[in-house]
Amino acid sequence: MGDEKVVLLDFWPSPFGMRVRTALAVKGIKYEYKEEDLSNKSDLLLKMNPIHKKIPVLIHNGKPICESLIQVQYIDEIWPHKSPLLPTDPYQRAIAKFWADFVEKKIYDLGKKVWTTKGEEQEAAKKEFIACLKLLEGELGNKDYFGGENLGYVDVVLVPFYSWFYAYEKCGNFSIERECPKLIAWAKRCMEKDSVSKSLPDQQKIYGFVLHLRKVVGLSKILCLQHISRHC
Amino acid sequence: MGDEKVVLLDFWPSPFGMRVRTALAVKGIKYEYKEEDLSNKSDLLLKMNPIHKKIPVLIHNGKPICESLIQVQYIDEIWPHKSPLLPTDPYQRAIAKFWADFVEKKIYDLGKKVWTTKGEEQEAAKKEFIACLKLLEGELGNKDYFGGENLGYVDVVLVPFYSWFYAYEKCGNFSIERECPKLIAWAKRCMEKDSVSKSLPDQQKIYGFVLHLRKVVGLSKILCLQHISRHC
Repeated sequence: MGDEKVVLLDFWPSPFGMRVRTALAVKGIKYEYKEEDLSNKSDLLLKMNPIHKKIPVLIHNGKPICESLIQVQYIDEIWPHKSPLLPTDPYQRAIAKFWADFVEKKIYDLGKKVWTTKGEEQEAAKKEFIACLKLLEGELGNKDYFGGENLGYVDVVLVPFYSWFYAYEKCGNFSIERECPKLIAWAKRCMEKDSVSKSLPDQQKIYGFVLHLRKVVGLSKILCLQHISRHC
Repeated sequence: MGDEKVVLLDFWPSPFGMRVRTALAVKGIKYEYKEEDLSNKSDLLLKMNPIHKKIPVLIHNGKPICESLIQVQYIDEIWPHKSPLLPTDPYQRAIAKFWADFVEKKIYDLGKKVWTTKGEEQEAAKKEFIACLKLLEGELGNKDYFGGENLGYVDVVLVPFYSWFYAYEKCGNFSIERECPKLIAWAKRCMEKDSVSKSLPDQQKIYGFVLHLRKVVGLSKILCLQHISRHC
């Protein structure tokens, strides 16, 4: 693997980028991290992801792979021996993909609503956000990780949002731990692993980013939403 | 495989259900088809997909698999030898997954906008819909199928929308073939295969369904959209 060249085009607060960083760290793959300025995207980003023009982009030996779930699966297929992420049994694989898809469809959008809305809309978003986390908590059950005894695909896909939890809580004035103590215990268990904790920014730093965005874009919700979707 | 029991909970106009029907047909797998009444969902559907409560649900030897892209991948993993759908090379797999994900994110929603809106909103939807089809046409290039010489994963994921094209065209007063002749040639090539043509309803029948829905839900766009999202 001495000749492998792995580059990641990313933006530090992106939970999607964090998934790829975590997967690469779990596998012990060294890579070159290139921070993108999303208000002035690099020619490399536009060339490597001409369809969506979004980070993260994983570039492996010059070839781009886009979309974080696909990137994590690719990493697992290219480096299958160390810390396999997806189960080998087709049914268990389908179940892991189902929950990753659930996270993909629900958590980012609901989290964004929590920190970009107020009043009734925010209350509804908080309620649905917690309901989704409770479903995930149910799926976790008494296992250490979604992957069982070891970190797996769903863990890698979900854990980045933990770095956003403090921002959600401060903006939404609620406690995720009070509602979902087992899920928080799981997140802390993940964070004990260097592969996770070194791939995720500090919760306070994400909250600072959120405050900065709110200040820059002002109170206009629509502008704010547009701005965020460009950034993450 | 004599003991295999495969059941599909489905609703005939669903492009998502059509994907699973096509994949099973391509593999030559016999299955029991159970039509759901989505205004009065069966206990079996609610039990087998308690999270989303949506069709299609594939039930293999009593165990449910949900979400059409995951179902098609599962079918390909369980019955890998006949007509493999995903490439074996990890990079080519990632590319196929990227385009399937692109179809998933764009085509259904834009198609729905084409037939449920009017005026400027409809014009914008038509424009974006065609732009997306042109990107897909570019990816197809001079290949017979997205999968190359044979039907592959992206073909199975995209071709169901062909049965909706006539409804989109009639509602939007435009010709997809004029804009994307190579894509229509591809769709017709797919339809020459029994595995595809027998899994997709007739375009006229889908248009009749669309007219029926429009009549039942009247002119209220919001009601209409809600109704459709419950149905497909």
